[in-house]
Amino acid sequence: MPDFNRRSFLRFSGLAALPFLGNASTAFSRETLSAESTLDVIKFFGDGEMFEPAEYLAELQKLNAHAAIQKDRYGSGGAVEALEKKMAEITGKEKAIYMPSGTMANQLAISVLSGNHTKVFVQDTSHVYRDEADAAQSVFQKRLYPLAKEETYFTAATLQTAIEQLPEQEVFGSGIGTVSIENPVRRTDGRMIPIGEIKKISEYCRSKGIKLHLDGARIYMASAWSGISIQEFSSCFDTVYISLYKYLGASGGAVLCGDKDTISKMPHLVKIHGGSMYGNWTNAAMALGRLEGLEDRLLKAKAKGEELFARLNKRNDIRINPLDGGTNIYQLELTGGTDARIFQQKLNTEFSIRMPFAPGKTKSLITINETILYKDLAFILNAFSQSLTAGKG
Amino acid sequence: MPDFNRRSFLRFSGLAALPFLGNASTAFSRETLSAESTLDVIKFFGDGEMFEPAEYLAELQKLNAHAAIQKDRYGSGGAVEALEKKMAEITGKEKAIYMPSGTMANQLAISVLSGNHTKVFVQDTSHVYRDEADAAQSVFQKRLYPLAKEETYFTAATLQTAIEQLPEQEVFGSGIGTVSIENPVRRTDGRMIPIGEIKKISEYCRSKGIKLHLDGARIYMASAWSGISIQEFSSCFDTVYISLYKYLGASGGAVLCGDKDTISKMPHLVKIHGGSMYGNWTNAAMALGRLEGLEDRLLKAKAKGEELFARLNKRNDIRINPLDGGTNIYQLELTGGTDARIFQQKLNTEFSIRMPFAPGKTKSLITINETILYKDLAFILNAFSQSLTAGKG
Amino acid sequence: MPDFNRRSFLRFSGLAALPFLGNASTAFSRETLSAESTLDVIKFFGDGEMFEPAEYLAELQKLNAHAAIQKDRYGSGGAVEALEKKMAEITGKEKAIYMPSGTMANQLAISVLSGNHTKVFVQDTSHVYRDEADAAQSVFQKRLYPLAKEETYFTAATLQTAIEQLPEQEVFGSGIGTVSIENPVRRTDGRMIPIGEIKKISEYCRSKGIKLHLDGARIYMASAWSGISIQEFSSCFDTVYISLYKYLGASGGAVLCGDKDTISKMPHLVKIHGGSMYGNWTNAAMALGRLEGLEDRLLKAKAKGEELFARLNKRNDIRINPLDGGTNIYQLELTGGTDARIFQQKLNTEFSIRMPFAPGKTKSLITINETILYKDLAFILNAFSQSLTAGKG
Amino acid sequence: MPDFNRRSFLRFSGLAALPFLGNASTAFSRETLSAESTLDVIKFFGDGEMFEPAEYLAELQKLNAHAAIQKDRYGSGGAVEALEKKMAEITGKEKAIYMPSGTMANQLAISVLSGNHTKVFVQDTSHVYRDEADAAQSVFQKRLYPLAKEETYFTAATLQTAIEQLPEQEVFGSGIGTVSIENPVRRTDGRMIPIGEIKKISEYCRSKGIKLHLDGARIYMASAWSGISIQEFSSCFDTVYISLYKYLGASGGAVLCGDKDTISKMPHLVKIHGGSMYGNWTNAAMALGRLEGLEDRLLKAKAKGEELFARLNKRNDIRINPLDGGTNIYQLELTGGTDARIFQQKLNTEFSIRMPFAPGKTKSLITINETILYKDLAFILNAFSQSLTAGKG
Repeated sequence: MPDFNRRSFLRFSGLAALPFLGNASTAFSRETLSAESTLDVIKFFGDGEMFEPAEYLAELQKLNAHAAIQKDRYGSGGAVEALEKKMAEITGKEKAIYMPSGTMANQLAISVLSGNHTKVFVQDTSHVYRDEADAAQSVFQKRLYPLAKEETYFTAATLQTAIEQLPEQEVFGSGIGTVSIENPVRRTDGRMIPIGEIKKISEYCRSKGIKLHLDGARIYMASAWSGISIQEFSSCFDTVYISLYKYLGASGGAVLCGDKDTISKMPHLVKIHGGSMYGNWTNAAMALGRLEGLEDRLLKAKAKGEELFARLNKRNDIRINPLDGGTNIYQLELTGGTDARIFQQKLNTEFSIRMPFAPGKTKSLITINETILYKDLAFILNAFSQSLTAGKG
Repeated sequence: MPDFNRRSFLRFSGLAALPFLGNASTAFSRETLSAESTLDVIKFFGDGEMFEPAEYLAELQKLNAHAAIQKDRYGSGGAVEALEKKMAEITGKEKAIYMPSGTMANQLAISVLSGNHTKVFVQDTSHVYRDEADAAQSVFQKRLYPLAKEETYFTAATLQTAIEQLPEQEVFGSGIGTVSIENPVRRTDGRMIPIGEIKKISEYCRSKGIKLHLDGARIYMASAWSGISIQEFSSCFDTVYISLYKYLGASGGAVLCGDKDTISKMPHLVKIHGGSMYGNWTNAAMALGRLEGLEDRLLKAKAKGEELFARLNKRNDIRINPLDGGTNIYQLELTGGTDARIFQQKLNTEFSIRMPFAPGKTKSLITINETILYKDLAFILNAFSQSLTAGKG
Repeated sequence: MPDFNRRSFLRFSGLAALPFLGNASTAFSRETLSAESTLDVIKFFGDGEMFEPAEYLAELQKLNAHAAIQKDRYGSGGAVEALEKKMAEITGKEKAIYMPSGTMANQLAISVLSGNHTKVFVQDTSHVYRDEADAAQSVFQKRLYPLAKEETYFTAATLQTAIEQLPEQEVFGSGIGTVSIENPVRRTDGRMIPIGEIKKISEYCRSKGIKLHLDGARIYMASAWSGISIQEFSSCFDTVYISLYKYLGASGGAVLCGDKDTISKMPHLVKIHGGSMYGNWTNAAMALGRLEGLEDRLLKAKAKGEELFARLNKRNDIRINPLDGGTNIYQLELTGGTDARIFQQKLNTEFSIRMPFAPGKTKSLITINETILYKDLAFILNAFSQSLTAGKG
Repeated sequence: MPDFNRRSFLRFSGLAALPFLGNASTAFSRETLSAESTLDVIKFFGDGEMFEPAEYLAELQKLNAHAAIQKDRYGSGGAVEALEKKMAEITGKEKAIYMPSGTMANQLAISVLSGNHTKVFVQDTSHVYRDEADAAQSVFQKRLYPLAKEETYFTAATLQTAIEQLPEQEVFGSGIGTVSIENPVRRTDGRMIPIGEIKKISEYCRSKGIKLHLDGARIYMASAWSGISIQEFSSCFDTVYISLYKYLGASGGAVLCGDKDTISKMPHLVKIHGGSMYGNWTNAAMALGRLEGLEDRLLKAKAKGEELFARLNKRNDIRINPLDGGTNIYQLELTGGTDARIFQQKLNTEFSIRMPFAPGKTKSLITINETILYKDLAFILNAFSQSLTAGKG
């Protein structure tokens, strides 16, 4: 990947932890050979299971045994259609469409909602602004107008001011296209926008006839941690994108939901941008299968994680606290002189618990996901306890 | 898929036969439930196995058992990288890259090879001209200049004349971009361009500094039927695209090969057009696995098919002939008053041999692919014999 | 002008004659020094007066003396606004807008009328197809679909067939954008499309909801020679472009007329494509002034030219005939062994009558324009007579 | 002009003063009728003469009388070519090209210099960023990256930091295109960038292989007020745009200068964007004529203005000071209770001196241009003196 800045990518990505897993990667390689082995590994990084190939195939076969997976053809029919219907239902939108990537979902949504209008308001920290390689400008001919520098969100008031000041700042109007909001925000460690603010933004936009897009790649995290339903979030937006590989297990793919008119324009656009693939069922069937019970599992994972952290926080050698306005990412700190590397390695090799630590650091951002459900609380508490002790030499 | 003309699509597609399989589709559905079942079905349509989900998973598990499949991340590493290296080797090019679709591979190759020059010469019957939904004009800002109306190919002389006449026809030059050639040509039933003509075109283009792209989606068919190696074909072109799902078993995907400079520009372009997917190993691993021995299997399939047709042609109730300049598509005609529907159904239900027939027709285009290797010649001959007899009531 | 093919440009351009004027160019240079001198030169080439700078300034001053010319600012107000109003009135459209060039007028009209639809049907011989340097594809992202190869026009039936066959030819619809018609057609020597055919095309397009654009750069010629009013032509189209420099005397510029909605989108588009100039009154005021009485002058010029040719055709040494379906371009042939060069030179130097002849040719295409009104018929007849005689040496 | 915010446009434009001229506009209209009349009017607004039509024609005739103006054809030959040669000489560049507008000159320069790279660094206050209606994004597919919010310029250090931080801020590089600098800056009242900073930026850019464009619409003002030659400014940049209508008298147009390679690509680009006009001599001849002696006149105007202001500043009822880092725009304040409206009107009606004042204001930004040379210092001083007195009622 040319021009790819690996370091900063990893810093911001759900994969950040991987290079810091010590010799865990050896274990990884071994485990990939036996389909059953890693599915009891607890990973305190990433938003969900990221299956290794053997696990992936086993999971799909399990799903197929339960109900035969149907192929799609160029995204029509089969598992893809079933997933689209399910996602439309979940978001309360008329229609949904499978797309190869979140970048395509975001860009096409913004492009269609904006029409010929040029200006698109986004968070400075958003994926659309920072992680889509200037696709908005260079392919979709839009101008991104960033708000809330280095912050999680802009308020309705900030947005309104920005829009109202435009005629002062620029002589020639080129039209307000779309407002696009990422929630939660990956570049601010999964922090959320308060639902009240979203509703104010939505009301303002509707009063002005401005369309609103949700980059809800990780919206399930916002939902589990805020208690707001996917549908309530979605109701504030014209289009909603949800990722299929972050916590839905698929190896890739995205779904975009919206009204019939908007979504019906997408297949042609996906085609001309080169995203129309022959078969997409390997992703769609996985995501469809994993959707089943997801909300429940996430709520349980959250409750279990909070219980675990509360119990650990009674110790004086470890501190795990939520982020301000955060979702499933927490701040962990070793406060008792524990050697992070030994702690990390013991958790990994003896208890199959993966914990991210950058070399030489005693602080880390850790993530709750459904892998925490693989073992009971006593097992995990004991693992932490033994590993903390070991780390004190 | 809006604006999608199902009828004409099917007419030209490898899937054309499916709707005409009578009640075979029922059989199909049943079989998808048991992983082993369809892999002894001979299909006289399509360029290769098009796995049903259960078969697909079984095939990938078989490959994984043989050598653990490695995941890619956003197309880097693992099975994707292995496939890219293999494809570069096969085509004799410096570098290869995985892409989600043939449309993206064709369009990005043409775009990069053309630079700012506008005019791109293509066959009137080519996929680039007819089946990419005007992507060239509407997204990649190129002008396609079709040659050889309704024919398989244009000659070097035709190309030269077209290029030389341009200044007569148009005052303002906008620059010759690329010449793109599809071989073999799907819309002319898989017919090939003679290698001699390709070499003349290549020499002319090189003498003029014009870049040349090969849409070699089905180049393996041209190779097997002409005896020309993939590498010899590829050596005439600057870039070569090969499909992964037509005869390589993958559910989707494409590979583009070329020199380092050209291919190194692609990841950024794939990203901004929305084609950068997180995991692509489910396609890459399959294609990589199926590549092993493919040339040999195709040569055997061709030989077996020809032997079969020669033997059948000794009968007076059936005639199977190659197309002029064709590859793996043949013309079959029932000449003895056989009821095509009964013939087709008996082959299907009793012998698991699938044969395409449009309702009421006694002629059909049938395709040789590697499924013909699933049964021995005697079995197939007997199946045809009994089914022909049955069809005469 | 890079890639500019001078020879073919001149062949097709109204300026074609100039290089063949023998030593007339010397005379030209001299005359430019005195403002009054060339306005009694009869030119049998070009569609109207093409003022030399001194004449241009004198003409504008004459107009200014009659009614003070008002400046525009960025195309707003003054002579530009007055011209736009006049043109809207003439074409019977709601609104008109001044643009720097016919290319911009054609491309923006087609772009706006087409919306996101890709396919634009044009004559193979049209300016849009052949003389706009692939602007349609490379800037405006449209696909031009040429009809009526090397001919003046396509019929409604041809258009209908082309549109109806599209789904057979291409699987993915990309939407019918606009039909654009040039009338009369420069590349077929000013030949016209029969009004009946235009009306059929218009009816068909309206019945299908397809927009129709008229490249009426020279529509005044079609009007004078067919007797059909500009308004009747215009009523068949959604937008109409008329050139300002071909017979309206301006040094450049174009006007596009259409409904309010369409034309109101243009200023922004003109701006972002870089065509928004500060002052445009030097062109607008000239065109506005010359519009006055233009139709009348053209009818008189036509009548006088026809009378002249009829009289000359009674001789046996010259033949001047109209083109089939032509407008103001006629075929002249010296049939009595006259030396064309001597004939041409005598007409030029003694009578200030400019006549185009390619070296060594006895045939030429000559053009009637309003300069024929500068001298009376007897003078011109005598000039021809003496020059023909001289040419027989 | 839809979406055109008149108020803010005027605020920032050289025309800002016009609506505040009281009943001067009546006088204006009258004067336009007699060619000689306004050329002794001193205007303390605008960067130069903005000829009324009658004056414009008179000026061109004067130039034509001196040396016959030659027509161009589509920007080739004649006055256009002569102007291009002159401008190339002045800027010390290999080649120059006439363009219809500064927007086109800026956008095409940036587009060609950037190639496929996306990011273009500009001042937040620049014309490219604020006054080209998002052309960069919507037509030329570039991403503008604004620096130095609300300020005149960014330093080399700021630029370097921005470029170096990019990989931290964004994972996917899309390539550094061009750095574009406007100097002086219209939106900061004509303030200049110190030549030292320009040279540092230039050195940095050259060391990194980044191309640098100068929006030198008003570069003659920067030159006169800084004493730096046009050529010295130009030597720091790869391309330089200079406006033809702001102080060169033309009714519109721009010239872009650069190396042969870059400029040779322009005619094709001008054509496809619709900016290729038939005749451009009415602007080119004017600019060419007014270029003669321009630097000298501006230096004299500056000296005279400064002398005038120094003399006036000895009074206690008026204060005229230069702006910090400014060029030809000065801050005027009535400090003695003078009624600005009476002061303004008396200057206008009795002395033909135009002075801008917004209603109710006693401060104003006034501009020195070459009209100050029309009257001698004593006349102007007397005019101010009498008008100031009158204003005190």
